[in-house]
Amino acid sequence: MIRSKVAILLTLLLGIAAFGQTNTAVREYRQANENRLLTDFVQFLSIRNVASDIPAVYKNADLLVETMKREGLAPQAWYLGDKGSPPPVIYGEWLTPGATRTIIFYAHYDGQPTDPKQWNSIEPWVPTLFSAPMEKGGAKIPFPKDGEKIDPEWRLYARSASDDKAGVFAILTALEALKAKGIKPTVNIKFLFEGEEEAGSVHLGEIIAAHKDLLNANAFIVCDGPVHQSGRKQVVFGVRGDVNVDLTVYGANRPLHSGHYGNWSPNPALTLAKLLSSMKDDKGNVVVNGWADDVEALGPVEQKAISEAPKYDDELKRQLGIVYTEGGGKSLLELINQPSLNINGMSSGDVGALARNVIPSTATAVLDLRLVKGNDIDRQVEKLRKHIESRGFHVIDHDPTSAERSRYPMIAKFTVRAGGYNAQRTKMDLPISLRVIDAVQAVSKDPVIRMPTLGGSLPLSIISETLNVPTITVPIANYDNNQHAENENIRLQNLWDGIEMFASLMTMKTN
Amino acid sequence: MIRSKVAILLTLLLGIAAFGQTNTAVREYRQANENRLLTDFVQFLSIRNVASDIPAVYKNADLLVETMKREGLAPQAWYLGDKGSPPPVIYGEWLTPGATRTIIFYAHYDGQPTDPKQWNSIEPWVPTLFSAPMEKGGAKIPFPKDGEKIDPEWRLYARSASDDKAGVFAILTALEALKAKGIKPTVNIKFLFEGEEEAGSVHLGEIIAAHKDLLNANAFIVCDGPVHQSGRKQVVFGVRGDVNVDLTVYGANRPLHSGHYGNWSPNPALTLAKLLSSMKDDKGNVVVNGWADDVEALGPVEQKAISEAPKYDDELKRQLGIVYTEGGGKSLLELINQPSLNINGMSSGDVGALARNVIPSTATAVLDLRLVKGNDIDRQVEKLRKHIESRGFHVIDHDPTSAERSRYPMIAKFTVRAGGYNAQRTKMDLPISLRVIDAVQAVSKDPVIRMPTLGGSLPLSIISETLNVPTITVPIANYDNNQHAENENIRLQNLWDGIEMFASLMTMKTN
Repeated sequence: MIRSKVAILLTLLLGIAAFGQTNTAVREYRQANENRLLTDFVQFLSIRNVASDIPAVYKNADLLVETMKREGLAPQAWYLGDKGSPPPVIYGEWLTPGATRTIIFYAHYDGQPTDPKQWNSIEPWVPTLFSAPMEKGGAKIPFPKDGEKIDPEWRLYARSASDDKAGVFAILTALEALKAKGIKPTVNIKFLFEGEEEAGSVHLGEIIAAHKDLLNANAFIVCDGPVHQSGRKQVVFGVRGDVNVDLTVYGANRPLHSGHYGNWSPNPALTLAKLLSSMKDDKGNVVVNGWADDVEALGPVEQKAISEAPKYDDELKRQLGIVYTEGGGKSLLELINQPSLNINGMSSGDVGALARNVIPSTATAVLDLRLVKGNDIDRQVEKLRKHIESRGFHVIDHDPTSAERSRYPMIAKFTVRAGGYNAQRTKMDLPISLRVIDAVQAVSKDPVIRMPTLGGSLPLSIISETLNVPTITVPIANYDNNQHAENENIRLQNLWDGIEMFASLMTMKTN
Repeated sequence: MIRSKVAILLTLLLGIAAFGQTNTAVREYRQANENRLLTDFVQFLSIRNVASDIPAVYKNADLLVETMKREGLAPQAWYLGDKGSPPPVIYGEWLTPGATRTIIFYAHYDGQPTDPKQWNSIEPWVPTLFSAPMEKGGAKIPFPKDGEKIDPEWRLYARSASDDKAGVFAILTALEALKAKGIKPTVNIKFLFEGEEEAGSVHLGEIIAAHKDLLNANAFIVCDGPVHQSGRKQVVFGVRGDVNVDLTVYGANRPLHSGHYGNWSPNPALTLAKLLSSMKDDKGNVVVNGWADDVEALGPVEQKAISEAPKYDDELKRQLGIVYTEGGGKSLLELINQPSLNINGMSSGDVGALARNVIPSTATAVLDLRLVKGNDIDRQVEKLRKHIESRGFHVIDHDPTSAERSRYPMIAKFTVRAGGYNAQRTKMDLPISLRVIDAVQAVSKDPVIRMPTLGGSLPLSIISETLNVPTITVPIANYDNNQHAENENIRLQNLWDGIEMFASLMTMKTN
């Protein structure tokens, strides 16, 4: 323990010495330009960016290409086939004469679908500035006029303010700052901005495979996800896999009057409730047979990193307003290294003002399955399907026909959403892993946290399988950014810090 | 058994002899006017009629008053206080010189709330004619021009086409036909049309109490609900009580990314699923403690009537596309005489295209509790609340405060909707009960089914408590009318039959 603390301290001091000048220059550039930078970011966030909304994502792609052209980054929009095809990957490069190493910087410009009605008096694609987080009493404030001071604690609310246009923006601004200040990167830099990550990166593998010759690199650095809940930066060496399943169970073939038929005709909401309940025990442990059987155990370096990470669960529980946790009392970090099973949504009939005295005819849930190293999508989905069968259901992939209805007492429609992928984990003790940790440490006053895996998912298995390059993730967003939910936001200081971090990575040591 | 069948046959023959002339005259009137009658009904159905939509329900009330004025029925709209107050009760009367008995005819002109998006290519308040039921391949057809033949198997689709504007319309048209044909009713007739039955008749007791002097009567005849599934008419002597409960359980105080926090932060959808599951066993029997303890057992006349009712469960299961039933294998008729617990709706997060990889922050269900004679709303609700507490929940009537969140691991918001009421049952062997059965039998070729209670609910306990008058229900709608659901409809022959039935009741024997 003492040795490791000394090592961290040394790294910290060395980092400050070596990178201090670059950091100062990048910070000065940002401070001198922050009104304009904020305006540019707001413009970027104003464009709708749900991957299925093709005309909108194309507008995002066009803006990116235009911006990167102005910066001399030789951008290319990689469409899959003709226009009208899936969201393009935007590629760009900035080659450093004499550099022997190449780093790809990745972020995604699409965002999660959202129901605008759920946002609290703001619109997802009308970026709005607040004096502090809404839930802490922050108030809407006007955007500052040119030259007016910007408070780094302000929050900018918009879809993708954190996830993940912040990443795209911080990466591009880092290079802009280095160029403006005349600081030469130490590596060749390649940019890769994806437009359908939130839709499961369905076409990413195919697109990058077609441009493999441009993507030889020593590391694939991903900007996505939040920093640690404590505010400390983290370097993440793996991500979980993810796959979604849609599940529907059935009552009568039409909605029925609950008085005339209730408690006789089966209620699918009850059927679904019983089925979902059967998947976890009363302590919230997944009890689907064999769920964690194929998990690859963590090595000693990874276990040590976890043990050195801050113990934050109690503080987190206080902030989230919860007393008990699922997972039988295990810590969040332990559980993140296990496969999960989560209900994203559940619906049957109506609630609220539209509720009626009916027996609904169907009940639906959407599940997400997070995978860790060792799990496999197909195997994991199959375990879930078997579990449903073991509960007496006839499992099919379509709405039941009359013949099926008359044959099977309980029927479940079970379909797997496209775009699932496996987990990925880079070893923490590779030379490139150590250099990335150093570069991030150089811009952090606190010791950087090293995480074997992020709780979230990214299609990094697609990258590592296609390009055979180690991937490492360096998040920048505040942890309370409401990622994937309504009222997504970024704390401006996190955006500013992100710029410095990427500049530091672009000037990392290479010896 | 034999004696009772002979008795039914005799009644049938006597009925045909005594009422044959009236029936024929009423039928002739309807046949001669059916194009106009259909047009009038369509006009009535075109007015939005959800009780909470005050401007719209007032329009319905105005149309009713106008129509009844034209027929000389001395209508009064009973508002509770000034205009702007709840939907009025529309009262009218047609006194028969020399009559010593008075019958009140009740129906309601409001309809269940509905989500227009759920309707199958039609709008709830744009009445649309189909050649047959949609689910049996019926096609949209234009309304017939004046003089064109109307097929009685056509279906008219609209909110309240069956429930319960059909009742209002059939009652008023029956009197119109009698008057036009110069047939004198045998009783004084009073009309009572309610405008917030689907919202729980919250103000009905107060309104009729204020006009009690006008409502002395020998029977209160209600038109609501469907005829038997076999198509046979039924006379119903009781209705179940009904009360709705809203239930919400909580996860973290904001939606969370399912990857970063899933399987650690509690998922309220799972919590709700486990709670709802705990209310019924695997055979669909309610297992809430004491649920049926206070049920008043059926008497021998009622038990006999049930045993003589058609055995229809197997046919119904076939039609509804279900194989197993809740209630541990008991018949539908047995279960209707027991208190029920049904999930009307259940929601957490989103499903379908809006589903996201989140842990929702709340999960909500709406429950309806049907009560039978002996049950009491307050006691029944209390049993449910105690059950939830027994599952470890802290039960409150508001969203939890931070202090409550930090104190209780599991919290449920439990609120009871206004407008609940108890069950009601009139004895089957009262003289007025026998006369009503006779009058309905007179217009039926098959023996009329006598039901101790309807599965559905009506605020008849309010009536019997306020007016001290026996209530009897005579439904007219086809059983597959999609009452309370989307695609509500009426089979035109049921509407026509209803007119004849009410004319028969208005000319019932009084000796």
